Amino acid sequence: MDLKKIAEMQIKMDELHGFPVQFPTTQEKYQQLTKDLVGLFGEIGEFSNIVKKVNIKLDRPDEYPLELPEAENLLKEELVDSFIYIIRIGAILGIDLQAETLDKMRRNESRYAKLRRK
Amino acid sequence: MDLKKIAEMQIKMDELHGFPVQFPTTQEKYQQLTKDLVGLFGEIGEFSNIVKKVNIKLDRPDEYPLELPEAENLLKEELVDSFIYIIRIGAILGIDLQAETLDKMRRNESRYAKLRRK
Amino acid sequence: MDLKKIAEMQIKMDELHGFPVQFPTTQEKYQQLTKDLVGLFGEIGEFSNIVKKVNIKLDRPDEYPLELPEAENLLKEELVDSFIYIIRIGAILGIDLQAETLDKMRRNESRYAKLRRK
Amino acid sequence: MDLKKIAEMQIKMDELHGFPVQFPTTQEKYQQLTKDLVGLFGEIGEFSNIVKKVNIKLDRPDEYPLELPEAENLLKEELVDSFIYIIRIGAILGIDLQAETLDKMRRNESRYAKLRRK
Repeated sequence: MDLKKIAEMQIKMDELHGFPVQFPTTQEKYQQLTKDLVGLFGEIGEFSNIVKKVNIKLDRPDEYPLELPEAENLLKEELVDSFIYIIRIGAILGIDLQAETLDKMRRNESRYAKLRRK
Repeated sequence: MDLKKIAEMQIKMDELHGFPVQFPTTQEKYQQLTKDLVGLFGEIGEFSNIVKKVNIKLDRPDEYPLELPEAENLLKEELVDSFIYIIRIGAILGIDLQAETLDKMRRNESRYAKLRRK
Repeated sequence: MDLKKIAEMQIKMDELHGFPVQFPTTQEKYQQLTKDLVGLFGEIGEFSNIVKKVNIKLDRPDEYPLELPEAENLLKEELVDSFIYIIRIGAILGIDLQAETLDKMRRNESRYAKLRRK
Repeated sequence: MDLKKIAEMQIKMDELHGFPVQFPTTQEKYQQLTKDLVGLFGEIGEFSNIVKKVNIKLDRPDEYPLELPEAENLLKEELVDSFIYIIRIGAILGIDLQAETLDKMRRNESRYAKLRRK
């Protein structure tokens, strides 16, 4: 599905649940953006906590109880939650995430051309 | 464009530049994942620094020099960079970001149904 | 108690528990530093999740169940955990956190002198 | 120097520069706390960007230009800036960082006793 369409669906749902992405003043816009940035941090923090545990498990396999497949399921979940916050923050900023990402990928392609492996 | 297609393009480019997403051992996979998580943090940190400055500007408009349109251009750039890291981390974990996001949105829809505004 | 002494106590305990701060190679030093940085993200993420909830509570007092005093106890706990990671990362880098902080405060004092309120 | 004294000096300077840590309402307190949390993200993000570069340098020593001693000086600086934000956030929350850290260390000592190496 189009990234653009996915973003629209998510924002429509947010608005329905009382989390708008448009604001009457710049002040209110950045107050909400700042809060959502903290929300994004929370999700990436949860992701980080699981990565931390996987790393301890890999360093001390016999001492530390952790099921890797279960941990990877949780990582998936937290990564998706982080992505949803990025969609939301993008919408508050009025960014077309799809167009901007394609544009950045094009610019990175030239920028990193010298690293290309033959 | 399909999120799935965007992710594939990004990963193909990463691999071409010597940043693989597949690894012979779980150890090497998580070593790279941990490094890319730090990369994601860097991008979100840059985004945060700009938000911080916008907030100071909004609190002290006369004291603090900052051009909002320019700051918003930078915010756009850093958000896209963060998104590219999320694509990359998803690929290392073997996640189908598109399918998982649609699935999570469906589950959130039921979960937050009680918040729905009429 | 001296910050220097607090840091020493924490590091002695870490070493006792099998989390060294000195490494035979730069590679191993940065591998551990990178892991501990992810640990720090985890703690700040937990802190962020609680701040997020407090902010929702303040925005929607009647809809959202949260006890502020309990939330503040958790914030305290997560902030201290974040600080302990900063001590640990500082020790891996061989930083004298106390001396460097006092030095930075002195430099900030000159740098922000123009902001001083009369 | 006492951590308590260091924190007091930092807060006194913040207040002098127009960044208070006490607020008339809980709303204003958490608005500022949320902003300072974003400031902390910014500092840890800058720290992360340097760690990212050091890791690339260690992986690709011949391809990537970076002076390790210079990078470590920057890491020191960013870590101290992160610590100063932690002091500030602690003051907004009315936390006695020194007492709470010593208390947490004592609790960790019992909690991790089973990991102790002989």
